[in-house]
Amino acid sequence: MAKQEDVKKVVLAYSGGLDTSIILKWLVEEYQCEVVAFSADLGQGEELDHIPEKAKKTGASSCHILDLKEEFTRDFVFPMFRANAIYEGRYFLGTSIARPLISKAQMEIAAKEGADAVSHGATGKGNDQVRFEVSYYHFNPAVKVIAPWREWDLNSRTALEAYAKKHAIPIPTNKKVPWSSDRNLLHISFEGYALEDPWAEAPEEMYTLTVAPEDAPDQPEYIEVEFEKGDAVAINGERLSPANLLAKLNQLGGKHGIGRVDLMENRYVGMKSRGVYETPGGTILEEAHRAVESITMDREVMHLRDSLVPRYAEMIYNGYWFAPERIALQALIDETQKTVNGKARIKLYKGHCRVVGRDSATDSLFNVDFATFEADEVYNQADAEGFIKINALRLRIAAMQRAAKK
Amino acid sequence: MAKQEDVKKVVLAYSGGLDTSIILKWLVEEYQCEVVAFSADLGQGEELDHIPEKAKKTGASSCHILDLKEEFTRDFVFPMFRANAIYEGRYFLGTSIARPLISKAQMEIAAKEGADAVSHGATGKGNDQVRFEVSYYHFNPAVKVIAPWREWDLNSRTALEAYAKKHAIPIPTNKKVPWSSDRNLLHISFEGYALEDPWAEAPEEMYTLTVAPEDAPDQPEYIEVEFEKGDAVAINGERLSPANLLAKLNQLGGKHGIGRVDLMENRYVGMKSRGVYETPGGTILEEAHRAVESITMDREVMHLRDSLVPRYAEMIYNGYWFAPERIALQALIDETQKTVNGKARIKLYKGHCRVVGRDSATDSLFNVDFATFEADEVYNQADAEGFIKINALRLRIAAMQRAAKK
Amino acid sequence: MAKQEDVKKVVLAYSGGLDTSIILKWLVEEYQCEVVAFSADLGQGEELDHIPEKAKKTGASSCHILDLKEEFTRDFVFPMFRANAIYEGRYFLGTSIARPLISKAQMEIAAKEGADAVSHGATGKGNDQVRFEVSYYHFNPAVKVIAPWREWDLNSRTALEAYAKKHAIPIPTNKKVPWSSDRNLLHISFEGYALEDPWAEAPEEMYTLTVAPEDAPDQPEYIEVEFEKGDAVAINGERLSPANLLAKLNQLGGKHGIGRVDLMENRYVGMKSRGVYETPGGTILEEAHRAVESITMDREVMHLRDSLVPRYAEMIYNGYWFAPERIALQALIDETQKTVNGKARIKLYKGHCRVVGRDSATDSLFNVDFATFEADEVYNQADAEGFIKINALRLRIAAMQRAAKK
Amino acid sequence: MAKQEDVKKVVLAYSGGLDTSIILKWLVEEYQCEVVAFSADLGQGEELDHIPEKAKKTGASSCHILDLKEEFTRDFVFPMFRANAIYEGRYFLGTSIARPLISKAQMEIAAKEGADAVSHGATGKGNDQVRFEVSYYHFNPAVKVIAPWREWDLNSRTALEAYAKKHAIPIPTNKKVPWSSDRNLLHISFEGYALEDPWAEAPEEMYTLTVAPEDAPDQPEYIEVEFEKGDAVAINGERLSPANLLAKLNQLGGKHGIGRVDLMENRYVGMKSRGVYETPGGTILEEAHRAVESITMDREVMHLRDSLVPRYAEMIYNGYWFAPERIALQALIDETQKTVNGKARIKLYKGHCRVVGRDSATDSLFNVDFATFEADEVYNQADAEGFIKINALRLRIAAMQRAAKK
Repeated sequence: MAKQEDVKKVVLAYSGGLDTSIILKWLVEEYQCEVVAFSADLGQGEELDHIPEKAKKTGASSCHILDLKEEFTRDFVFPMFRANAIYEGRYFLGTSIARPLISKAQMEIAAKEGADAVSHGATGKGNDQVRFEVSYYHFNPAVKVIAPWREWDLNSRTALEAYAKKHAIPIPTNKKVPWSSDRNLLHISFEGYALEDPWAEAPEEMYTLTVAPEDAPDQPEYIEVEFEKGDAVAINGERLSPANLLAKLNQLGGKHGIGRVDLMENRYVGMKSRGVYETPGGTILEEAHRAVESITMDREVMHLRDSLVPRYAEMIYNGYWFAPERIALQALIDETQKTVNGKARIKLYKGHCRVVGRDSATDSLFNVDFATFEADEVYNQADAEGFIKINALRLRIAAMQRAAKK
Repeated sequence: MAKQEDVKKVVLAYSGGLDTSIILKWLVEEYQCEVVAFSADLGQGEELDHIPEKAKKTGASSCHILDLKEEFTRDFVFPMFRANAIYEGRYFLGTSIARPLISKAQMEIAAKEGADAVSHGATGKGNDQVRFEVSYYHFNPAVKVIAPWREWDLNSRTALEAYAKKHAIPIPTNKKVPWSSDRNLLHISFEGYALEDPWAEAPEEMYTLTVAPEDAPDQPEYIEVEFEKGDAVAINGERLSPANLLAKLNQLGGKHGIGRVDLMENRYVGMKSRGVYETPGGTILEEAHRAVESITMDREVMHLRDSLVPRYAEMIYNGYWFAPERIALQALIDETQKTVNGKARIKLYKGHCRVVGRDSATDSLFNVDFATFEADEVYNQADAEGFIKINALRLRIAAMQRAAKK
Repeated sequence: MAKQEDVKKVVLAYSGGLDTSIILKWLVEEYQCEVVAFSADLGQGEELDHIPEKAKKTGASSCHILDLKEEFTRDFVFPMFRANAIYEGRYFLGTSIARPLISKAQMEIAAKEGADAVSHGATGKGNDQVRFEVSYYHFNPAVKVIAPWREWDLNSRTALEAYAKKHAIPIPTNKKVPWSSDRNLLHISFEGYALEDPWAEAPEEMYTLTVAPEDAPDQPEYIEVEFEKGDAVAINGERLSPANLLAKLNQLGGKHGIGRVDLMENRYVGMKSRGVYETPGGTILEEAHRAVESITMDREVMHLRDSLVPRYAEMIYNGYWFAPERIALQALIDETQKTVNGKARIKLYKGHCRVVGRDSATDSLFNVDFATFEADEVYNQADAEGFIKINALRLRIAAMQRAAKK
Repeated sequence: MAKQEDVKKVVLAYSGGLDTSIILKWLVEEYQCEVVAFSADLGQGEELDHIPEKAKKTGASSCHILDLKEEFTRDFVFPMFRANAIYEGRYFLGTSIARPLISKAQMEIAAKEGADAVSHGATGKGNDQVRFEVSYYHFNPAVKVIAPWREWDLNSRTALEAYAKKHAIPIPTNKKVPWSSDRNLLHISFEGYALEDPWAEAPEEMYTLTVAPEDAPDQPEYIEVEFEKGDAVAINGERLSPANLLAKLNQLGGKHGIGRVDLMENRYVGMKSRGVYETPGGTILEEAHRAVESITMDREVMHLRDSLVPRYAEMIYNGYWFAPERIALQALIDETQKTVNGKARIKLYKGHCRVVGRDSATDSLFNVDFATFEADEVYNQADAEGFIKINALRLRIAAMQRAAKK
């Protein structure tokens, strides 16, 4: 086979599941190359302990396991939440924001291992292949990328299971659910199969991180979230690391059934696709962050920033986290967060959360003590007349012009 | 007095309440001019029947009453909802969108009556004065605007009541609530007094259009909302006029405690201000509209439109509904709505609503029958490789350039 | 060959030159299919008369010739100039705007002829392939597209000439110039070979539509251009059809050496590329159009429109003329042009043009007779104080807040 | 008079000319307060030497003179040119960018002097009053601002001269020109009187910094401008300080008649106004800067930045240089300039300048040596097919949907 000549060593993003196990084996067979497995803990809540054994048994020469939960939250999730980034009005970008970090860690291992190729388990119809590969190329423009789903002929469940059987890869015995999902510390997503009828409600048993609102406590719960420079640092007065804080918000949001979204979204590769998401902690985080911004952020700064968020969210959704335009926009966003210091009080109840109070000891643009100035020095109602007249001038001139035209 | 020479006849936006009654009398006294009262029904839910008598008793030469509920919903609320316009991420612009219509009707009466001045009861610290006056000047650039709150010396409740007593204006005996409010078919707003501590939760007794989520039914309710060219036309299969449809959504949303928002917002006149809003029907309308858009609207059209919505919302908030830039932007927005035909299924429960299904018989970009084309003619997974490689090219070149630099 | 089964009849965008002659023959040979040649006159200034004979001699079953100069100017160039669209600050999009029209006409012929495929002579490294094919798919999503440059192995000049010789295709004997070019009524572009060193000045002999500024008349020339709804309709008082008007401007601009641009631009496919352009008439047109806008267009309308032009220009550059986002944006642009009626006086001299006067008999927002209003009713200098104070309020509050913090 | 109680000491922006001399005297008379004169050298090319004597003779208690040319160029002009900021497509913002620096220096003197008020000579109809005062309030929200033109009754030339005579203020004897002007190191502007007919060409004798293109040398001149991080640092290989570099460019541009603009512009206070500008050095600077960007800046970064420039230019034009939204946007702009290192070769000839070459030894995204990679690893023409097909997918689906609808 020609393939074996191209690649000497490939680093595979490996989850231990059936699909990436088959890919691991397929890479060994097809490329006759060394395969290094790599698994990252981004808070997917699965056991990573036995992964090295599984990987080696399936043919990996070695296996790297990294706990990236703090880096993920601190350097990826939090910068994104400084912008209140939401894709198409609803999606908190939980999967989109994880891919760049996995790619980065994978490329660091590839560099250390001297690998000439990398591989992933994303299909050819989705966004994830773009997010992975655009990031790979950023770190090494000459890297060889192997995307088995675009290459092989194992295009059905049956073909995959036959391949697994043939190569003695264990097939999980637990009941196959009729959807696919992706989970990390920010969210879990669902798509496919049971969700393909856009009119049908998503099945209740699918939800993982949240109870049904109907099953949430009958009493609301109030929490306080504190922010420094736009990043959450404490809940109810307790300072927590980024990952621990997000985990705590997930637990609170999940308990109250908060953060479910059912969305028909537009993929970067051009088709519409239904996604259902649970983002319990992120949903609370956005509500609280906006509340602290509302009392500390200048109006024009907020409006400028907000006008750029659809584009920023699109960059992340499409996979351009490491691209210079995202970094340029982040510079603006981070500049806007210097004064975002304060806290928000949020009411959690039966599937939603709502700010009921906000404050800033250091940066409130509302609390400023106007008493130190005479009222009419700071705001003189008579000024409003001039303000209105000057602002209306162009409209008055246009009205005169229209009248003259008649 | 010099004032009496300036003005012969003034049309006053009159509500029948204490403040505009005092203004009416004050205008008569101060300007020695004829005062025409004008009241519009935009769905504020108050009795307008006795207004003409009250107005005349207080000194008005005549009184015009207009039912504008259908025009309000059809020509103001609905065009705005085609854009999913929300100010500062939370406010559905319920008061902002009403002011231009009141101004328009008032100026039509002024033209008919041959009045040379108009007046309103908005204070000198708020947004409404701008919204009224900018609109007035659009219709008549030479109109004389009288804003009593910016002119007179009745700057305390006591002074006002003394003036009322002196002029035999009846002072309402019902308990004065510690907030001010503005209501129409789209929403009710609250501000001032009890809400001035931004950390304190708004009092439950204030809410008018919605039950507390805790008191909402324990069972969720599902409804279907149908859209044509971006406008809602039917609920649960029943076609309704715009105003009746919005009233119906209000009743449904109110029953389930939907649409409460507590916001620290930025006024156009430069200060921050806390507003609490109930927009029960509008909240459902936005959720449903976005859902129908999600299945019928092109991705790039949506992203372009969404990037302009903060600016569009700002125009409306600031009072520029009749300005040419709003009209230019509306042309874009309306163009995007031609395909927004379909229906959404919404779940209402305990204070929030969430789309659970969406469909379009005529314009779905998801339902298209791909079967008429060979799968790989429409989407060939191998194409994704080229797509990614070309999109990554600039990033690869930059990476090579960085490497060469070292 | 498998290929012959796929395609029965292909419509080729045919210029009569060597490359598309070889493509014609190659299509016949390779696909064993009927080839219909199509040539459009967009003002490229070449003889189209003998094209049908040449096409048939080279193997075409038939040949369609269309004069599209008026449609090109009226429905493509003019709508684009309503926006003052310029790519990357310098390029007037002369080639970009021609491709969609060629594609449209080609697809109409394909429909009429019952062809199942279309083909073009654009290479795999440029923008034109995208512009052609994106437009093809818009008109027929199932059309088969054949891009020979991406398919064949004739990848050198030698291979091409060998192929031509073998198939008795006449090779032009005129000296081969060291650049490639594309010309139509709006411009001529140059790229490649002699231009590949970005530091070296483009050779003077390359320029086609313009004299060297040094060779232009020593006396300036003044012209007047008149506009209706944003479109030029007359020069020096003489009404002209769109194509004739643009031709006249080209003649004037060319005579004075106007409209040369030397640009390092970013292609849609990801690499930088140097392009040199001559757009004599278009350069004058933009200067004149902006001048008429400057006296007739509202400030906020202009600023809103201008902020969208980079995106609009990008859409056209990338090939999305027929895409719904371009059409939505055009709706906004066209709405802004309703008042753009008037004329501009332009000075042409030695390589550049500059507005020296502008006027509008019907829509000037400058000429309005302020005399009909008392000066201080329309503009009262005292109003400016209120205007400034209110606008500065947020900055004053922020300054107080900073001071309090210290 | 009440006035004398309000103000103890005022710092006046003083030019030594008739108007600010009258203001100086008027302040002393009207407010019975101490007046400190302040003059800044921003390159207006006038003698500042005798200003202290004149100021004191007219009544000033003291006079501060500052040479701000380097600070002006380095911290105001250059940051603005990093964005290629141009207002309404034509105006290089030469006056707008000077006002914030004058205000800053004036407020520093006010702080040092313990002054409670500041004053300036800008009228109530223009932009400058806003630029001054918004900046004043940024530095001291409690400062008293005195704008004599909005306050006094000296509203005619005759009244002014009478006042001058009465107070023994010398009236300049040189012929009064029929326009007003403002000059600094970046530009000179003209407005009023002779320019009020928008159709009439501006008089040749008005121009100050540039020769008429007709009088410029018959031979073109080529220059090289070098940039580091987006700022010009050298001309023809000679490193120069910012102010010296700009002065040198002015001299070169002026000699060749470069940088004249005749514009009908929209003032912030709502009316249209004609301005004529000479920006010889700035015009060359922008051409050169764009050229270096074109070879060093990523496409998406450029397009993002360009889409924000109209808003950025508007901020500066309106006077919001010190506002947080300008600073946030500057953070983005500066981030984009890190790679803008290189040089441009510019041809100067008879009224215009044009880039003819550009290069970057360190950051070219064009010069990258593709030879280190196999050609088809970096760019494979076959990839373009996938790129196009995926990009066209949404348009194909829409076309199928339209077809199905029929």
